[in-house]
Amino acid sequence: MPAPAPRVTAAVLIIGNEILSGRTQDTNLAYLAKKLNEYGIQIRESRIVPDIEAEIIAAVNALRRRYDYVFTTGGIGPTHDDITADCIAKAFGVDLLINEEIAEILRRRESPPEIMEMRMRMARVPVGGGLIRNPFGPHGFYIDNVYVMAGIPQVMQAMIGSLEGQLRRGITVVSRSITAYMPESHVARRLGAIQDEHPDIDLGSYPFHRQDRFGTTLVLRGAAGPDLETAAAKVRQMIIDLGGTPEEEAGA
Amino acid sequence: MPAPAPRVTAAVLIIGNEILSGRTQDTNLAYLAKKLNEYGIQIRESRIVPDIEAEIIAAVNALRRRYDYVFTTGGIGPTHDDITADCIAKAFGVDLLINEEIAEILRRRESPPEIMEMRMRMARVPVGGGLIRNPFGPHGFYIDNVYVMAGIPQVMQAMIGSLEGQLRRGITVVSRSITAYMPESHVARRLGAIQDEHPDIDLGSYPFHRQDRFGTTLVLRGAAGPDLETAAAKVRQMIIDLGGTPEEEAGA
Repeated sequence: MPAPAPRVTAAVLIIGNEILSGRTQDTNLAYLAKKLNEYGIQIRESRIVPDIEAEIIAAVNALRRRYDYVFTTGGIGPTHDDITADCIAKAFGVDLLINEEIAEILRRRESPPEIMEMRMRMARVPVGGGLIRNPFGPHGFYIDNVYVMAGIPQVMQAMIGSLEGQLRRGITVVSRSITAYMPESHVARRLGAIQDEHPDIDLGSYPFHRQDRFGTTLVLRGAAGPDLETAAAKVRQMIIDLGGTPEEEAGA
Repeated sequence: MPAPAPRVTAAVLIIGNEILSGRTQDTNLAYLAKKLNEYGIQIRESRIVPDIEAEIIAAVNALRRRYDYVFTTGGIGPTHDDITADCIAKAFGVDLLINEEIAEILRRRESPPEIMEMRMRMARVPVGGGLIRNPFGPHGFYIDNVYVMAGIPQVMQAMIGSLEGQLRRGITVVSRSITAYMPESHVARRLGAIQDEHPDIDLGSYPFHRQDRFGTTLVLRGAAGPDLETAAAKVRQMIIDLGGTPEEEAGA
């Protein structure tokens, strides 16, 4: 049997006052979680910080040492509150330089000098960094294991899409979702026993209330293979033994 | 002039593998941001961590020392992956005890002993803690400045609602949102100058693309008063000077 693929881990750092004030509902984390899992990368932590230099630098430095990758979203536009590039450069102790390839893209749209100067802020890349392609406008960048992307979902999605095949690949987790119309407490004890028997499977229990019925969805996540299928079979049998009917759900 | 109300700060700690895997789209942070602002409390940071004891304890301890309040969501049900109460107790170095008021609520629904034992997990409160009322089931709890709530949005919303009037009150931030149909880069320089002139106002710039038009929404957030209104007037005048038409938007 070949050695199992390693886990490759990531953190997502969401930068922006608008997320912490509730003005904007973040959807990038959930998108990134699914996309990165397709790439064989698992998100282990996320932090949301305001547009404050010291906070961003501290979070970048804490996360980049701890996880294989850090993906940031937000703060890469042309205005005064777009300070992500400055913070990343300071976190790595390097300068920002104008990247000629981005500058060329920005120059294609003519602007008065005052406006062009602000737009050129988006061409700054830390020394030692590489580009993350963006078909809609100026590219993002990465430096070492930190990938800096836009906050606007369509742009962020294009950027992460452009990284396919460029990142180190580990396990892709698959899931089995099994629903039972019974309270969580009914399955709790036997579920804990199944979890103990399958420590490599992440076994979650999510109660719900829909169409006036209470139920619990049991989600098994892990590498595809016999361990996952055996654990899922035990969960189905548990529901039958407790007088219920297991229903498979699509999706994660 | 009376001294301005202080800023009261909070962090939100979201606990659960299902958020980090993308299975569940978190909506609790945005809800809490708006509700806590009504209470005069500002969220300054949020972290999302998996159902792993060491991660939860480390995050609780980092955040509770840094902010006036910490609000946690998730992990307080009856199953093996519900470890928040255990982690909070360990973070504070205290024991968990069965709270008789919660136990009484749980006993109202008869269950076989095995199931009741798992349900009683939800009655455990750290020594020194108080209750957070939940009309739907077992109460949550707080200890010192850490408030422990459910992850299910309806339950979390009832819990935070029950705390109205019980938390220390600081500034409530109000906002003015002004939209211009022009690119962010056009307003960037003058916007930075307005921000410099009004350091107590948080001035954000959010580009958008809707109905085939590009534009920028400028959001001013701060204590209600002349400083905010003066800054908003400058933003409107800036848009007019640049050849645009400022449009007021409702909401934050």
